[in-house]
This record gives sequence, C-alpha cells and structure tokens, in this order.
Amino acid sequence: MNKPALTIYKIGGSIIDDAAELTKFLELLAQTAGLKILVHGGGKGASTMMRELGLVPQLINGRRVTDAATLDIVTMFYAGKTNKQVVADLQRLGVNALGLSGADGNSIQGVKRPVKEIDYGFVGDLTPTSINAVFVQQVVASGLTPVLCPIIHDGQGQLLNTNADTIASAVAVALANIYEVTLHYCFEKNGVLRNVHDDNSVIKEINSAGYAELKAQGIIADGMLPKLENAFSALNQGVSQVIIGHALQINSCLHTVLCLN
Amino acid sequence: MNKPALTIYKIGGSIIDDAAELTKFLELLAQTAGLKILVHGGGKGASTMMRELGLVPQLINGRRVTDAATLDIVTMFYAGKTNKQVVADLQRLGVNALGLSGADGNSIQGVKRPVKEIDYGFVGDLTPTSINAVFVQQVVASGLTPVLCPIIHDGQGQLLNTNADTIASAVAVALANIYEVTLHYCFEKNGVLRNVHDDNSVIKEINSAGYAELKAQGIIADGMLPKLENAFSALNQGVSQVIIGHALQINSCLHTVLCLN
Repeated sequence: MNKPALTIYKIGGSIIDDAAELTKFLELLAQTAGLKILVHGGGKGASTMMRELGLVPQLINGRRVTDAATLDIVTMFYAGKTNKQVVADLQRLGVNALGLSGADGNSIQGVKRPVKEIDYGFVGDLTPTSINAVFVQQVVASGLTPVLCPIIHDGQGQLLNTNADTIASAVAVALANIYEVTLHYCFEKNGVLRNVHDDNSVIKEINSAGYAELKAQGIIADGMLPKLENAFSALNQGVSQVIIGHALQINSCLHTVLCLN
Repeated sequence: MNKPALTIYKIGGSIIDDAAELTKFLELLAQTAGLKILVHGGGKGASTMMRELGLVPQLINGRRVTDAATLDIVTMFYAGKTNKQVVADLQRLGVNALGLSGADGNSIQGVKRPVKEIDYGFVGDLTPTSINAVFVQQVVASGLTPVLCPIIHDGQGQLLNTNADTIASAVAVALANIYEVTLHYCFEKNGVLRNVHDDNSVIKEINSAGYAELKAQGIIADGMLPKLENAFSALNQGVSQVIIGHALQINSCLHTVLCLN
C-alpha cells in the first residue's frame, strides 16, 4: 500500500528576519501541492528585544542559553509573534494553517537538557517518543497545515526552548511510518555547494557513499557537516528523502537531494 | 435529541497577573467534568513590557489603542507567553489543551474596527460569522480543550487585538446550536452583588424580569452593566445559561446564574 506523501519544510532565522523574503517564501509554499508541515526557527528579534530590555543574550556553540527571562522572550517571539504572523499570512494565502507549540495537543514533549559542562537552562532535548505522531497525523488528515515553533514542554508545566532543525527531523522520522516523508531544509544557499564561494556549484544529489567521499575530500565541512549528519540520520530512520536548498527555490529543481542509495 | 453540555470559561487580567491564583484556577478547571473551552484575556504584563521598551500604553474606555508596536507586544504576550504557559499547565494537569489564536485553523476572523471619533488601530470587531464553529467543534470532539487568546485575524494577513469577553460570548452563541452552552465569566468577585461593598451579598439567580428590576433600582450599574448586557444578549441567542462568579469558586455554588426565565 502506498503511503501518502508529506513534505516537512523547515525555515530558519535568516528568512524570518526578512519580512519580504518570508512573504515570498509563504507564497511559494501556498503554491505547492500536497500535505505539508512547516517548522520555523527563531530569528534575531528575540535577541534584539532582550538587549532593549537590558538582558544579555548568550549563545554557546550556536545554542541559546535560556534562563527564565530568556525563555519568556523566546516563547513570546517564537510561539507568539512569529508563529501567529506566519499562520495569519498562510490563511491569507488560502492555506488553513494551525500554529502549534509542543504543549498544544501535547504535540512535542521533551526533557530539560541535563547540566554537564554547560547549563543551557530551559533548553529541551527530544527523546525517541517526544513526537505525538497520532495528534500530528490527525491535524494533517483534517486538512490543516501544522506550523510548529521550537517551543516544547516537559509535561510538568515547563516550557522549553528547542532547536528547530532537530524538531523538523524528529517530526519527519516520527511520521515516516504513516507518510512518504520529504524533509526540506530551506536556507540561504542554493544547496550543498562543491565550492562554498560559488553558489552555482550545487551538488544535485548525494547518497550515503557519495557523502562519505565528500567528507573525506573535505568538501563538506563546518556548518554543513551537522546538517548532513542529521539528514542521513533521518534517512536511516525511514525518511524518504531530504532536500537542502534556498527558501525561495522550493518549487524549483535547484537544490541538493539526499537519499540513502 | 439532547445536545451535549459544553462550558466556556472566561478568565481575565486579574487572575492572569497572579501566577499562584492562575495555577489554582487551572487545577480547579482540570477537576471539572465535561467538555470545555477556556478563553483568556490579557493582563498587565503587556503594558509593563511596553513601558520597559519606552512605549506608552493607551487605553480609551478600557479598550487598548493598538498601534503596530502595541500589536506586536500583545500578540507576544497573549498568544505567546500567557497562552502557552496556560496550555503547558493544563497538560501537566492531564487536560489535553490546544492553544488557539483566531488565525489558527481560521477559528476567529474579524474586521479591523472602523475609525470614527477614535482610531483604535489594530483592534478587531467580530461579525455574526466570525466564529468557525465547525472547526471549534472538531477540536472539542477530538477530546481537546481549546484555549483561546484574544488575538484574531482579518483573513488578509493582519492580526487584530480583540476583547476576550466578546470572544467568549461570540463562541458561546456560535456553538449554541450544537451544545447546551454554559458561559462562565470568572472574575475577582463572588458574583453579581446586591451591595458592592459586601462580597457575601451575591444574587444567586437573575432572569430577564429580575434584571430589568435590578437595573431600575440602580443595583446593577457601572462595570457590571455591560457584562450583564452581553450575558443577556448571549442568552437571547441560544446560550443556555451564563454564570458570573469568582475564578476560584468555579466548582462551588457561590455565583450568580443568569437565565432568560
């Protein structure tokens, strides 16, 4: 029996911070056929507001250290301002969107990151059972497009700040039994580049063997490495394909497709 | 055929501003049997943050004048911080809550208030077709408890700030064909008081005739008048009963019940 196709789009800070680009992206998204889920990250707005309020944003290895005051601000930005504006824009475009934090419908329940060398504060990690696939499927099946923000909960009343890339891949994996899932990471480049200085050097397709080779050659390094590690991990857990490309090219063929074989 | 019972609880700023009271209320709410919807208003948090950011909150006749910067802040507070914390607390208490702005699932679509003597800015008014009763019923029927915040949308991508009392009564009216609806206004008094200085002088029941009499006698006046006007308007549009009482007494019989006859 063929499973229905579902695409999970993930957008990050660079597009969220640019209202015109975000609008263009949402217009493209509204034109794509098929079942979909949108996962969005944060953006610079939360840090800007923190500074205006005399707070000091702190990031370690790209992850936000989230004390109680920071959690309030990121919850307001991600689950409030960004999530609701995206949902309202999608409604304007005829997409019946439903904004969700992890607390809503208990869609994503995680655990507070254990304190080791670094205390990240109210940062949430996902477990293999974090995603409420039954609920997310119900939402999708009822004709709605879930719009997930990176605020989850721990089931004990505590909200937690979580990485949106991680959420996107966990949702993709959790739904892979039900749907033919494509996980589409949107960012500011046209895909995985053979030459980081040449945006036209997109590698069209990478399979497991090719990935090992590109790593050995040092062509894939730095920020792209964890992205691709996550992508192949999702593929190994049943996700059909992962696409990495520019947010404003989601309807084109200009991107990198990752698959196992 | 008997319609199933549904209670719509509305809580306002005074309880939202008091974390301990809010927790107690949510614990009581979790203990109430039956289908329910929670509608919450704002609180002082948005105004406090506005002042910290150098903005000046402006209220006319108790309604917030909502320019673009104010809309951002109230969206962050109402749809973000307050809504998500309430939902996370309800999840902790075993209530499968789903936070909703009016944009989510297109649950409430309104119109920007026309500019007459006063320009209220991005304030939303409801129309007779504003409430998406089909969607709200689907959510309730699937075992979820909707938690509505007073941010709605206009269908054109614009979020709008709206009065939570108005939302509660409009939702009650819109669902009255489907459910036996009780609309339960929670506030800081034990009910409608015969003597405003005596919190023990609760009038247990008021029907239309009694209401006319109490108005004529001047016993109902000031802030209570619009509340009761709205309540009787909801009753006249099919809502079964309206209850006005203290937020921490929702499980007791200490309150005022309003009904037509």
